[in-house]
Amino acid sequence: MTDRQGNSSGEDSLIARYFRPLASDPGAFGLTDDAAILKAQGEDIVVTTDAIVEGVHFLADDPPDTIARKALRVNLSDLAAKGATPAGFVLTLALRAPDDAWLEPFARGLGEDADLFRCPLLGGDTVSTPGPLMISITAFGRVPLGKMVHRSGAKPGDRVVVTGAIGDAALGLDILRGGAAATVLAEDVAAKEMLIGRYRVPQPRNVMAKAVRDHARAAMDVSDGLAGDLAKLCEASGVSAVIDAWSIPLSRAAATLLARGTVGLEAIVSGGDDYEILCAVPEGRFEAFAESARLVGTVVTSIGTIIADTSAPRFVNAQGGEFVLKRLSYSHF
Amino acid sequence: MTDRQGNSSGEDSLIARYFRPLASDPGAFGLTDDAAILKAQGEDIVVTTDAIVEGVHFLADDPPDTIARKALRVNLSDLAAKGATPAGFVLTLALRAPDDAWLEPFARGLGEDADLFRCPLLGGDTVSTPGPLMISITAFGRVPLGKMVHRSGAKPGDRVVVTGAIGDAALGLDILRGGAAATVLAEDVAAKEMLIGRYRVPQPRNVMAKAVRDHARAAMDVSDGLAGDLAKLCEASGVSAVIDAWSIPLSRAAATLLARGTVGLEAIVSGGDDYEILCAVPEGRFEAFAESARLVGTVVTSIGTIIADTSAPRFVNAQGGEFVLKRLSYSHF
Repeated sequence: MTDRQGNSSGEDSLIARYFRPLASDPGAFGLTDDAAILKAQGEDIVVTTDAIVEGVHFLADDPPDTIARKALRVNLSDLAAKGATPAGFVLTLALRAPDDAWLEPFARGLGEDADLFRCPLLGGDTVSTPGPLMISITAFGRVPLGKMVHRSGAKPGDRVVVTGAIGDAALGLDILRGGAAATVLAEDVAAKEMLIGRYRVPQPRNVMAKAVRDHARAAMDVSDGLAGDLAKLCEASGVSAVIDAWSIPLSRAAATLLARGTVGLEAIVSGGDDYEILCAVPEGRFEAFAESARLVGTVVTSIGTIIADTSAPRFVNAQGGEFVLKRLSYSHF
Repeated sequence: MTDRQGNSSGEDSLIARYFRPLASDPGAFGLTDDAAILKAQGEDIVVTTDAIVEGVHFLADDPPDTIARKALRVNLSDLAAKGATPAGFVLTLALRAPDDAWLEPFARGLGEDADLFRCPLLGGDTVSTPGPLMISITAFGRVPLGKMVHRSGAKPGDRVVVTGAIGDAALGLDILRGGAAATVLAEDVAAKEMLIGRYRVPQPRNVMAKAVRDHARAAMDVSDGLAGDLAKLCEASGVSAVIDAWSIPLSRAAATLLARGTVGLEAIVSGGDDYEILCAVPEGRFEAFAESARLVGTVVTSIGTIIADTSAPRFVNAQGGEFVLKRLSYSHF
């Protein structure tokens, strides 16, 4: 808005122009107040927060709408893995300068995803920064009282299950950086685009929230690499796991690159940005879980078993040999 | 934590070492899960988010504990003005590199303020950035159902009231930058330290939340300058205001600098970082509001009157003359 003395207040104008149209929830008060209201409706509020930084989590020349979608979706993925239904989010946007050509598609992508996932914008803050673009989102979900699914809770004998496919996003980033995958797939435009798409626009498994809540004893989303995230789930549960490496679900493109030796298993299971759900499902519940997944169009794959041990999870091949992983996951520091 | 293959995961280690001790709330799950639970307890959840950026909202050489306190307090100030009781917060910390000598006092200051204001850390995210340090906090508060105090709601005849004193923080920043105030107050170390302290460590008026809820028709915190924030409150309420400029509460130091001509009224009322509460209180409630404030040790000052008009609020002097303000507030863009 332009204030009534005619002074242009750039920050308010930016919010009014690009973000107010997204604030359709009554608790957002059209972004004209200093705070929002989140109604609890007799359920627990699940809170998660994840930030993405230019040059770290996305590339400076990624399309603005995909940057917005990724910022929201990495948070939606956490809600999905906790069994929560999205309820809304707040946004902090740190910008060097307001640039309409960038902000317009950014806000459009954000709004489309907010609609798609029924997760309305409730509030936010825009700040100037001399540094890289950064988007921090805090997202809210609802679960029936006491029903949030934790990292802890996995028990020996449970199946280790993942949704979708593992490793694609890390390969997509490799292609964007002109790595080996780009050379090998030079002619296969569709495969390259699929992998890049998996890096830029995660597919959070929110349709699986109820199935996870109903059937999984422990769950988390795979954001920093399957191996490292599984180690975290096991540690929180006081257990270990044996993973059949050959059963880890791969896309055709990833399987091709693995078969040709372009990438090794370590890169597949330690690459970040999968945003799939990793969970421990009791043996007797696996069929029901898989059926629930099919109903919402999601592939789930049993990749191993939880065991009573406190050593690190092991990845074994068809001959029973063990892969020794030097790197488990992505870490910022 | 160090994971169980012996790979040091720096990010987890940083969280475990510095921030887990702050996560005392049961809903934080010791920061070992991917999300937190916020119990609603039959009340509305008020959500607010504010980020601070090095070089923009604080100076690179500000003490780390004061940076932490400011990051939390600017959010607590929003909760106070909305009449909400703090319930917890989540933190996003974007760092160039983990530096124990910086993180230790940062986490200590944050923890002390979380205790002081009974606003526990519920979760967070640490990310690496090549750019300036940035701290984004989303804070939660509780209000009885439907009782959040809005910017809108002020009515003609209401008194315009502020807590504390206005302008000190902007003068503190001027001193840190070696401005005119530093020269004039060269010998007055106590005054300089007070003003710098007001810039670095705001005093959010959370003790006033109930009084605001009980007596104010509209309220917001003064973060971007009294004049601009009052214009926002008036616009949201569809009213205007006449402010008696001489009644704006000033500290002795600010009054001295104004009397000597070191700063003008415009700098006082358009400087940011006051973090006082600005509210509209019906004439018949003002004495009760002031009495509630006295009970919690807070000075409140009536500085003018809400009027039925849609022009910008006017600042008048004792002779009825009007101050024309060219700048109303701080804006990022």
